[in-house]
Amino acid sequence: MNAHIITIGDEILIGQTINSNAAFIGEELTKIQINVRKSSVVGDNEEEILKEFKSCLAENDLVIVTGGLGPTHDDVTRTCIVKFFHTELVKSKEVLEDVKSFLKKRGRQLSKVNEDQALVPKIAAVIKNSLGTAPGMWIEKDNKIFVAMPGVPFEMHQMMESFVVPTLQEKLVNLDYSIKMQTLQTTGIGESVLFEKLGNLDELLNGAKLAFLPSQFGVKLRITIQESTEELANNKLTEIVQKIRSLAGRYIFSNKDELLEEVIARLLTERGLTIAVAESCTGGYISNLLTNISGSSAYYERGVVSYSNGSKVEFLKVDEDTIADNGAVSLEVARQMAEGIRAISGTDIGLSVTGIMGPTGAGVNKPIGLVYIGICDDKVCTAKKFNFGEDRLRNKQRAAQAALEMVRRYLLGISYDE
Amino acid sequence: MNAHIITIGDEILIGQTINSNAAFIGEELTKIQINVRKSSVVGDNEEEILKEFKSCLAENDLVIVTGGLGPTHDDVTRTCIVKFFHTELVKSKEVLEDVKSFLKKRGRQLSKVNEDQALVPKIAAVIKNSLGTAPGMWIEKDNKIFVAMPGVPFEMHQMMESFVVPTLQEKLVNLDYSIKMQTLQTTGIGESVLFEKLGNLDELLNGAKLAFLPSQFGVKLRITIQESTEELANNKLTEIVQKIRSLAGRYIFSNKDELLEEVIARLLTERGLTIAVAESCTGGYISNLLTNISGSSAYYERGVVSYSNGSKVEFLKVDEDTIADNGAVSLEVARQMAEGIRAISGTDIGLSVTGIMGPTGAGVNKPIGLVYIGICDDKVCTAKKFNFGEDRLRNKQRAAQAALEMVRRYLLGISYDE
Repeated sequence: MNAHIITIGDEILIGQTINSNAAFIGEELTKIQINVRKSSVVGDNEEEILKEFKSCLAENDLVIVTGGLGPTHDDVTRTCIVKFFHTELVKSKEVLEDVKSFLKKRGRQLSKVNEDQALVPKIAAVIKNSLGTAPGMWIEKDNKIFVAMPGVPFEMHQMMESFVVPTLQEKLVNLDYSIKMQTLQTTGIGESVLFEKLGNLDELLNGAKLAFLPSQFGVKLRITIQESTEELANNKLTEIVQKIRSLAGRYIFSNKDELLEEVIARLLTERGLTIAVAESCTGGYISNLLTNISGSSAYYERGVVSYSNGSKVEFLKVDEDTIADNGAVSLEVARQMAEGIRAISGTDIGLSVTGIMGPTGAGVNKPIGLVYIGICDDKVCTAKKFNFGEDRLRNKQRAAQAALEMVRRYLLGISYDE
Repeated sequence: MNAHIITIGDEILIGQTINSNAAFIGEELTKIQINVRKSSVVGDNEEEILKEFKSCLAENDLVIVTGGLGPTHDDVTRTCIVKFFHTELVKSKEVLEDVKSFLKKRGRQLSKVNEDQALVPKIAAVIKNSLGTAPGMWIEKDNKIFVAMPGVPFEMHQMMESFVVPTLQEKLVNLDYSIKMQTLQTTGIGESVLFEKLGNLDELLNGAKLAFLPSQFGVKLRITIQESTEELANNKLTEIVQKIRSLAGRYIFSNKDELLEEVIARLLTERGLTIAVAESCTGGYISNLLTNISGSSAYYERGVVSYSNGSKVEFLKVDEDTIADNGAVSLEVARQMAEGIRAISGTDIGLSVTGIMGPTGAGVNKPIGLVYIGICDDKVCTAKKFNFGEDRLRNKQRAAQAALEMVRRYLLGISYDE
């Protein structure tokens, strides 16, 4: 089954909003072995939208549309659906009840605008929106499937998960081949170094596909295999993953699409260990990442953003003379910060970061991007020096990722030496 | 001038990577009055890429491509360019020198893979990559412009800013009309309430366009005006903005595409005020936002992520009995946290957040999404209750945005009463 994803909205075209919806839908479709052939973005323009509906439905079995179904005047998707499928709007009692109960729960009145959302194209089956007022639409015609959902991400996510994906799965007949995908996530190694470490790719892959996806968080490797049976595909995948692990295993922090902080959270929880974090240049970003994970109170005890030197001395008992002698961005201060946060928190691990994120703040022998990361337990306290780049936000992300990787390596006993 | 943006890469189609590149390019082109008509994503597939090059160049004056120019085997864009333009690869001495000096700066050796990046299609002018090894390409043919850049965001950004945008600006002849756009960013008000507050839109807009763009951070309003002269467009814009301000001014935190934390940073810096932050449920996210802004050490003194009750008592001197009587998620604890962080930091303002982010942690009369935000100066200490939704990460974002909005309203003397 071939699919095309259409995102509607001027705000996407002109870059005011990043198209996370297409990514979400693409991921969900790929999981159920639907081939996402293409994706496109068109503005809030009836003519362009109608043209896109036509060409996409001609070339694909499935077209999924998001955006332009909201309550305001610039939302034209519903009008386009009515025109394209030569249908008319009818009032859906079911949707009206949903809208009423949605508003009631939030203590809001039903307005004319809300009431209008109960008008749906006659040809469409309604997809319930339990998180908002605009319903989704499911249309089948001439052996093709056309789905429209609102552009508000969490409303769309909910519709995909509760209705669209399960309904598509029912429609999918048994395939005569099997596609398997696997992601291996690395960090702390550059794309070209990793590429060369893997050696002869044709030999390694034996017909499978391998993509390198670099970002400031590391390089993702994506393996894709197509074989005539699931068993063959699985066997080949296992073999390739083992080979890659033997060549670059120390850099691989996960074999699926998860974040490094999720890996750390799992490791800490499994071992019943706790952590506290002292951040200077990352400004709370690491604590934020660690507490993004549900259940984080099991391992995350507290954090300090010791931005000023005063706060480093007062909170973390960093020695004033050490700051005076070495500067706040130094190996010794990183070590003392990690020791300090661990001591006051009573946790198993203390983690610290101090550095220069830019664009200002560079000094003699202290370029922008210089970062020291410290990690302590009750026996050992070490710190490591890193040199990142020029961009402030990217430096924060790279420093946080490197700090989390230090925790992972500490927990798994992987050293930094080759 | 009509433009189409093509993003190349399976990782975008299958949702492993969110397409931030198209957003960036869309924004840059819109700024210089180039009309972004459409945008599309195709996989790492020669046939699909060639088909897309053809249809996009037929319908547009400008086609901008990103992705698939990297050093690894899955990068096929360069091959497609050679085929599409019936040209050949030639070694560019200039690129080779750039690659060599780039690698030298990073203490890396020139590999075969790197050397291959100096091969560029004969028809193309090279766009220098000062942040990586893959060059960009600029091709003009039959009165059309075709640009290809690597998919690594910061490399592409740099090429857009230093070469593509200025070169396009030179090409743009004088237009016989003027388009003006203006964004007004609101927060703390829902889309439909805002819509109704603005009353009769036809009357308000008088031919201009208004888009409502909701997210967890608030609702953006985007006004677009096309008039025969720049003066007419500017006058009309001023008039509409004034009308909107008179109807919903208290909710507008910015009249451009900037973040609320940038507004706070500016206000604090202008007034020479300092802030310290005590966070529980937001886990460092607010400190992270405030320190994302360059120059933040002028106003941001320190932060505490007091996740455990112990850390609230020890760091912030929150009264243990208050926690026992009211729970850690309460108005009184929020107030004491704000007071506590202000007292230990000696800042002008203390800000605090405590709440239940979910999916676990709800209690009797304490649903998921319940958040208290406190703000104190040397005279007054207030706290406010909020009810957000069910999703953990969105709750963190909404709570952080609400906390920053409390700071903005405090600084500008805007109350929460209607």
